[in-house]
Amino acid sequence: MDREVKFPEIRPLEIDRYARIISTGVGLPKDVVTNQDIIDQYKIMATARAVEYSLGIKERRWSSVDEKLVDIMAAAASQCLERAEVDIDKVDRVICTKLFGDYVIPASSIGLLKKLGAKKGIPSFDIYAACSGFIHAMDLAIRYIASGDDYILILGGAVSAKATRYWNDPDPKTVFLNGDGVAAMLIGHSEVKSFLASYLLTNHSMYDIAKITFGTSFVREEMKDLDPSVFFMRIADGNLLFKSAVAYSKIVADKLLFETGLKIDDIDFFITSDQTTKMWEAQLKEIGIPKEKSQSLFYKHGNTVSAMSPLNLDDLIVSGRLKRGDLVMMQAHGAGASSGGMIFRY
Amino acid sequence: MDREVKFPEIRPLEIDRYARIISTGVGLPKDVVTNQDIIDQYKIMATARAVEYSLGIKERRWSSVDEKLVDIMAAAASQCLERAEVDIDKVDRVICTKLFGDYVIPASSIGLLKKLGAKKGIPSFDIYAACSGFIHAMDLAIRYIASGDDYILILGGAVSAKATRYWNDPDPKTVFLNGDGVAAMLIGHSEVKSFLASYLLTNHSMYDIAKITFGTSFVREEMKDLDPSVFFMRIADGNLLFKSAVAYSKIVADKLLFETGLKIDDIDFFITSDQTTKMWEAQLKEIGIPKEKSQSLFYKHGNTVSAMSPLNLDDLIVSGRLKRGDLVMMQAHGAGASSGGMIFRY
Repeated sequence: MDREVKFPEIRPLEIDRYARIISTGVGLPKDVVTNQDIIDQYKIMATARAVEYSLGIKERRWSSVDEKLVDIMAAAASQCLERAEVDIDKVDRVICTKLFGDYVIPASSIGLLKKLGAKKGIPSFDIYAACSGFIHAMDLAIRYIASGDDYILILGGAVSAKATRYWNDPDPKTVFLNGDGVAAMLIGHSEVKSFLASYLLTNHSMYDIAKITFGTSFVREEMKDLDPSVFFMRIADGNLLFKSAVAYSKIVADKLLFETGLKIDDIDFFITSDQTTKMWEAQLKEIGIPKEKSQSLFYKHGNTVSAMSPLNLDDLIVSGRLKRGDLVMMQAHGAGASSGGMIFRY
Repeated sequence: MDREVKFPEIRPLEIDRYARIISTGVGLPKDVVTNQDIIDQYKIMATARAVEYSLGIKERRWSSVDEKLVDIMAAAASQCLERAEVDIDKVDRVICTKLFGDYVIPASSIGLLKKLGAKKGIPSFDIYAACSGFIHAMDLAIRYIASGDDYILILGGAVSAKATRYWNDPDPKTVFLNGDGVAAMLIGHSEVKSFLASYLLTNHSMYDIAKITFGTSFVREEMKDLDPSVFFMRIADGNLLFKSAVAYSKIVADKLLFETGLKIDDIDFFITSDQTTKMWEAQLKEIGIPKEKSQSLFYKHGNTVSAMSPLNLDDLIVSGRLKRGDLVMMQAHGAGASSGGMIFRY
């Protein structure tokens, strides 16, 4: 990995009003799409078994035309709030970390409030930081709570695969990877310190390695013949993307451990963005975490962008493996250019 | 305005590590586009004088194909940092509040760092909250500084008019309104309390009043015949949009004055988003601020989305009208569904 960028020092959280994770929730589209479904639909020269073997994915969810991002966000938020027994109108702020929303404007977080039937005009906005967006949102939430808020609802995820479904000629390299799904988290005020360290970085030398143009960069005189591929992730160098996520895992882990004075063996669970099974395994190996202390849902969800890390967290909680008091290192690595992590006691 | 949504109470900023505005800066595209230019280009049945009379706009800047959002952001950021004599590598975090970026992913804030030649991998992300985005970013900045950061660079603005330039058939109702431009602000640590109150609200009953679909909401079977208008703001009810911005002005002003114990006459300058000259004037009238205590750059910039309020602030500073120690109420109102403001001592 090119290191023309020097990563920042980690700074202590100068916070004396603490936060903790109250609950999590998940929203998934109805349709399960298998490798065979994709092979059949796009007449791709592959076998379902070869795809599963090489990528680690068996199936993923794809939104139908009728399923909007705000619908799936509302399902995740409802589950999260019900588990916490907290009404949406008790929430001080909503932050959605998305890839595409149903619209650019207004923010999907406002659409979510409408869907949930919120009675209060809760301050809400969307943030974009690729797969690392959820870590940014968690970091934001603990700072809002430090400065006076009681409950922050954050959501991560995408319906990025939705577009794939309706074009005839998707990129065969990426068509199997993406899945639609959303995870929600309620972060609330706590008397006890729970978030021990937070670290985020960017690497602008990777700005052009993986991108979704779907912006004004493709505006041209001949734009009438719009290329639908502007809606898909374009990966200039997949190997570099892989290497960067692995390298960031170690950098983020080292910074977090330095700040907290913990050793890697002190961590009970490591949760990260699992863009492929190999990317997950390589991260574990790089920072020296045994597989039993982590998990990957890539095999059944695919790449759900900023939902990957919190979907894994939710699954560990719901399955009972992760218990209150356990020490968690949570990370996410986005599009080669953005990365971050936290250490918290669940 | 329909009030099915109850606006939240204002909460005190529980902050004991203070922030202040260090400097501002502006970036504008090269091309000035007059009303006559637009009339000629699109063969619209109107006179330049009538457009100016009815809307208040004489000209605006439109980006050319060669001018990317990150270029204009870099110009604004450079001016802002030079005025502060602060190097980009001293900045702890960069937040861009945009409408469209050059890409969806990676974040434009990372592209900005590349353009500026930052040596440090500064944590950076983009937020979307329509015209109110800059107030969210300021609110975020003071909370980051409260919890340990020293400098936050925030940017607002858009190259939303860029797309207009390259389609043959724009909406004649909105083609005159939008301009491209960016404003930057450096917020830094301060020993003295400067930000006195901050208030943000949403109104999800307005979620469908003004929107840019440019998301997955337009994904359809027949999507091959993509309607380019997905890239433009669609306004279902302009009158309601106007009324909402005026109503929010009063609500936000009242909350901020209540929290600070100030009276409207104590405010030295009122700065807001001036989507049209009439919208600016109606806001002033609604909250009882004389014109001499405000200003609008709509006549020469048009609607620059989240740059409107900070462009006005920068102009007041550069012209010498606004002086250190003056009390400012700054607001912005976005797409009918999001709004907010702050009171600070400049």
